[in-house]
Amino acid sequence: VKPLTDPQLKLHHIGYVVSDIEKAAAGFAGSVGARWDGKIVSDPLQGARVSFLKMGPQDAQIELVEPDSPGAPTARFLRERGAGLHHLCYEVRDLTATLQEMRDAGSLLAKPPKPAAAFGGRKIAWLLTPEKLLLELLETEANL
Amino acid sequence: VKPLTDPQLKLHHIGYVVSDIEKAAAGFAGSVGARWDGKIVSDPLQGARVSFLKMGPQDAQIELVEPDSPGAPTARFLRERGAGLHHLCYEVRDLTATLQEMRDAGSLLAKPPKPAAAFGGRKIAWLLTPEKLLLELLETEANL
Repeated sequence: VKPLTDPQLKLHHIGYVVSDIEKAAAGFAGSVGARWDGKIVSDPLQGARVSFLKMGPQDAQIELVEPDSPGAPTARFLRERGAGLHHLCYEVRDLTATLQEMRDAGSLLAKPPKPAAAFGGRKIAWLLTPEKLLLELLETEANL
Repeated sequence: VKPLTDPQLKLHHIGYVVSDIEKAAAGFAGSVGARWDGKIVSDPLQGARVSFLKMGPQDAQIELVEPDSPGAPTARFLRERGAGLHHLCYEVRDLTATLQEMRDAGSLLAKPPKPAAAFGGRKIAWLLTPEKLLLELLETEANL
């Protein structure tokens, strides 16, 4: 197995699909001891509304994802499986290079890099690994 | 929302169900830039075989989980959804107290504390939150 050039992949958040963030967020936060600031961001480029639950200071956040239309990718997920764990998001220093390396290692590009409203315009891209793990890659702040 | 007494929940691993660890592990590790030591642990009390992929030094590991029989809980998961993200595991200092608080906050006890072969006998327990997140709680090493 060829290691990735960037050894600094860092887990940024765990994506969890829900049908209604407003209804789910406070209860979700309470059930796992997280903090929720009430902020919800719409991202039409991703077909979603998202909000973040803050866990411990060292820990990855939990991202609640709500489809913004019946045609959104997460709407299909909800219909087929119901609410649940959806993806892992890792921060990377060089998004372009890491995408290429992961594709070389067999992952499919599910969505090319686009600026993400939830991350102040930092770019994200989506990959599906050979074992069907949906990965979101987020460029580190330093790349802005 | 009543905060948990133990603010030190720490994400230990993300559980991912596969049908065959031997077949999946090396490729999975390669696709996400993880290290795999080849060690697989059988845990009859959990009805599973498990193995860990090491990500960055600060990051949660990915636990591959394989059902050890057609009647295991993860066998049903595989039949219904295929391989995929399955649970989040947090370390807690006081397993009994945190379990009680989470149940008071609406989570269901899915499996009471038992020693886990994969963690040197440290106890684990399982909860299902009101939003259907499957949580594993692992007592910290200090409690041994």
